[in-house]
Formats: sequence, structure tokens, C-alpha cells
Amino acid sequence: MTQVSENKVFGGRHVQYRHQANSLACDMRFAIFLPPQASENHKVPVLYWLSGLTCTDENFMQKAGALRIAAELGMAIVAPDTSPRGEAVPDDADNSYDFGHGAGFYVDATEEPWSAHYQMYTYIRDELPTLIEQHFPVTGEKVISGHSMGGHGALVLALRNPGLYRSVTAFSPICNPSTCPWGEKALSNYLGEDKTAWQQYDASILMVKLEQDQHIPALVTQGGDDEFLEQQLKPDTLVAAAKGNDYPLSYELQPGYDHSYYFISSFIEQHLRFHARHLGLA
Amino acid sequence: MTQVSENKVFGGRHVQYRHQANSLACDMRFAIFLPPQASENHKVPVLYWLSGLTCTDENFMQKAGALRIAAELGMAIVAPDTSPRGEAVPDDADNSYDFGHGAGFYVDATEEPWSAHYQMYTYIRDELPTLIEQHFPVTGEKVISGHSMGGHGALVLALRNPGLYRSVTAFSPICNPSTCPWGEKALSNYLGEDKTAWQQYDASILMVKLEQDQHIPALVTQGGDDEFLEQQLKPDTLVAAAKGNDYPLSYELQPGYDHSYYFISSFIEQHLRFHARHLGLA
Repeated sequence: MTQVSENKVFGGRHVQYRHQANSLACDMRFAIFLPPQASENHKVPVLYWLSGLTCTDENFMQKAGALRIAAELGMAIVAPDTSPRGEAVPDDADNSYDFGHGAGFYVDATEEPWSAHYQMYTYIRDELPTLIEQHFPVTGEKVISGHSMGGHGALVLALRNPGLYRSVTAFSPICNPSTCPWGEKALSNYLGEDKTAWQQYDASILMVKLEQDQHIPALVTQGGDDEFLEQQLKPDTLVAAAKGNDYPLSYELQPGYDHSYYFISSFIEQHLRFHARHLGLA
Repeated sequence: MTQVSENKVFGGRHVQYRHQANSLACDMRFAIFLPPQASENHKVPVLYWLSGLTCTDENFMQKAGALRIAAELGMAIVAPDTSPRGEAVPDDADNSYDFGHGAGFYVDATEEPWSAHYQMYTYIRDELPTLIEQHFPVTGEKVISGHSMGGHGALVLALRNPGLYRSVTAFSPICNPSTCPWGEKALSNYLGEDKTAWQQYDASILMVKLEQDQHIPALVTQGGDDEFLEQQLKPDTLVAAAKGNDYPLSYELQPGYDHSYYFISSFIEQHLRFHARHLGLA
């Protein structure tokens, strides 16, 4: 693990690292925020933040305004990249923004040529937390959140791994990727045309199947003027799934807000305090 | 004036516009944040934010975390670009980051070929506020702040125009541009080799000359681990000038912080509340 940069911020530290990711068979960069409370004598819980299409580890750390609140609450934040990277990693032939580099969709690909590197589900669930818990003063307590493609990733990781995260939140997540253009393109390429394989990566399908004792607190915030709402995000499908299964999902539609970080920054404090309550921090 | 983009944020509006800037003889983009309190029946004061080298109107709006506080306080923020722009505007032959496009230094250039467009002092002091006060629900009450080159610009504009701004703050400003490499390069090119012309753009020189009744409250925050501190920024020179003239300058050195927006975001709330007090908002 090599340090790339370090900045003091709100009394804590924002640090970028590179490491060899075995699950992805490539070098990866991630960022971690360590709040001022974190020390060998006081380990802190971790929020994993999954970003959306085209993002890296930097967007959330620079634009969300989250570090102020995490510093107050005593919560670390880990922001991974959004796909495997590098010249050896196959990319979309069209260089499109919604598939390939910057668009890993947090799945474990099974189709060639993607399967050799695109194992973001395993990277986020297993490899990265193991690395983080080995090198930093953090507890094993985890919560997860994300935006758009990353909101989809956060929901899927939380719903498929009951007990792994204390709570999950998402901003404008892709709620039903099996039935939207972004999801259909990504899942058919990464997983093949058999749609039964897609179900394990579709929050609206997963939410229906969970037993009551597998439910964890969930909060989804969606901008009412988001240009992707109807065609790509489909929060109504998720809300219906939650209702049908008594899943504890809080869904908030915020009128006038769009898909940008201006929207995320407006509501990130609410999300971090939601997680803090379920971590027993506040 | 043409609208380029609009985002709802913290209940207010962030909007980018393009307009024909007469003083600069080119098209310019700027951004304005209008807090939720702003309306035709309730005009609000304006903070002008001047950014540093290489920045546009976007860096501060996206990264500083200022909009949350401005929304609470009821303060508009205007972020101009950092130089004239466009193919017709001469740029540094070496394409360097510290002169030409993105590096207007907030001066009115007198030397060819710069003088035809590089009139940022007049643009910020006269043209932009006139436009803002004409088109938006704002009062004539103004405060000013900035970072690095923009911190220099904010101090110079405030010190040379007593009564124009209620208060001035700066993050890691270039305090004595007459004697640092960034300043010497910019001022010799924009203003010529005669250093007497440089004095009107040097905060450390201006601060010595002001009468008591021309003093306005000033706050400067500097990161202790800023890589530019010794060679380019020279806050000690400004502090000495203030002391020598009983100027009401609060200077805060924050250990461990660097020159980045991680530093700015950590202390922007303090700066906005400082301005709010002098605007009678809080």
C-alpha cells in the first residue's frame, strides 16, 4: 500500500492510497478520511461510500461536505474507485461513460473479457474492508451508502449480506437495474443474457425476498427534478418492494433537486446522522 | 446574460451565467448562489469570492462547503472566473499555470498585449456588482473573500476601496506580491517593470498607508503546512504591516493544514460567520 496524498481536514486526515487489488487483478486507488477521534486507543466505525458513473475516489471527498460531519461524529469514511483501472483492464469499445472503466456497477462479472478484472462486488465486500481493518484504527462496524450506480451498489451489498452493515442509505440509486437502460447494458455484458443471474444485483428484487430478521435500516433520498428519475432510477419500484415485504425503508423525495453533488451535499448530513444513530454514535 | 446551468442546493439556487464583459472585452462565466431567503421582497447581501490560480467559478461552489452556511445566514455568493477567457484573449506563451488564462491576478493591466483584456480589478469592483445588483434580489451590501491569488485580490480590492465592502477575509493570500515569484512574474508582465505601479496591488504595502477611518475588519487564515507559505504567501509581512498601522487584522495560523480546498472547507464557516457579523446578519 502506497500513500498518494494527504490533507488535514476538519482536524482529521484525508489520505489517498494505491494498492494491488487481488480480486480485481490491478492497482487501485482509494481514499480514507480518519476523524480526529481515531487512534490506536479509540477505533472508529467506517462508512463505505460507493460513487456513481464516471467518478473516482475523489468526487465524494471533495464535493459532498461529508467530512465536517464525520469529524464531529467520529466516523471514518472510505471511498473506493468505481471500477478496476489501468491499461490492462478492458474498457468499453465505444469509450462510453456507462460501461467499463468508471462503471463497474459493483458486480462480480462472469462473462469474458470482463470477468478477469470486474469483480467489484468482492472487492468492496471482502478485500477492501480487510485491508482497511488491518491498516487503520477502525472497528469492524460498517455502514454503507452511495449515489446512483453507487446507491445501487450500496443497497445490493447491504441486502445480500445481512449483518455485515448496521445501516444502508442511498442517494438517487438505480433501484431496478434489470429494467433500465444503464442496468440492462451493464448486466447483460458483465453477467450475460440470462436474466436470472441479474436478480442478485437488483435491489428491488432482493428486497422482496428477505426475512424480517435480515432487515437493516435503510434510507433513500431522491431529487424530484433528477433527469434520470423515470427512465433509469425507478424509486417507486423499490418503495413498492419495501411495502410488500414490510422492509424498514425510509424514502424521501426532495422536490426541485437534481442528480448532482449539489443535491448530495444538501442531504448528506441527514444520512450520516442516520448511520450514526444505528452505530450508537449519537 | 445567458443561463448556463442551475442546481437547487440547501433550499437555494446555484446558477451559472455567461455574459459579455465590457471591461474585459470577452465573454465571461460566473456563478451565483442565492439563498432561500432571497426574494424581491427580501434582498440579501453578497459575498464576492475570488479564486486562486487555475480556478474557474466552479471550484469554490463545489468544494468549499460554503453554501450550507450561506443558506442559513441568508447571504448570496458570487464567484467570478479568475481571468478573461477565450481564443481572442492572449495567454502565456508557455501555457504556464501562473500567468495568463486562469491567472488574472485581479489587476488592471497597462502593458501590451495584456491591457486589452486583463482588467480584472475593474471587472470585480465595478462591472460585475453592477450586473449582479441589476438582475438579482440583492442589496448593495458587499463583503469579499478569496484564496491565494484570490486572497490577494480580496485584500487589495478591500484596502483600496474603503467603504465598498463591510469586511474582508482571505485564505492563504499572496500577501506581498511585489517580492514573491508569482507576483513578480504577473506584475512585471501586466504592469511593466516600474515597481511603483505594483504598490497599488500589494496588500502589505497598502495596509501601511491607510488612515484609521479607512480600516475595515479583516481575517486571514493560513495553513501551517502550506507548501507555498515561505516563498509565495509571506503572511508575516502582512501581519507586520497591520501591527505597524494598528489595522484590525485577525491572523490565524492553522497547524498542519495545506493549500487545498480541504483546508478552506475546514474554516469557511468561521469566515462566513465573520462576514455575517459585520453585515448585521448574526
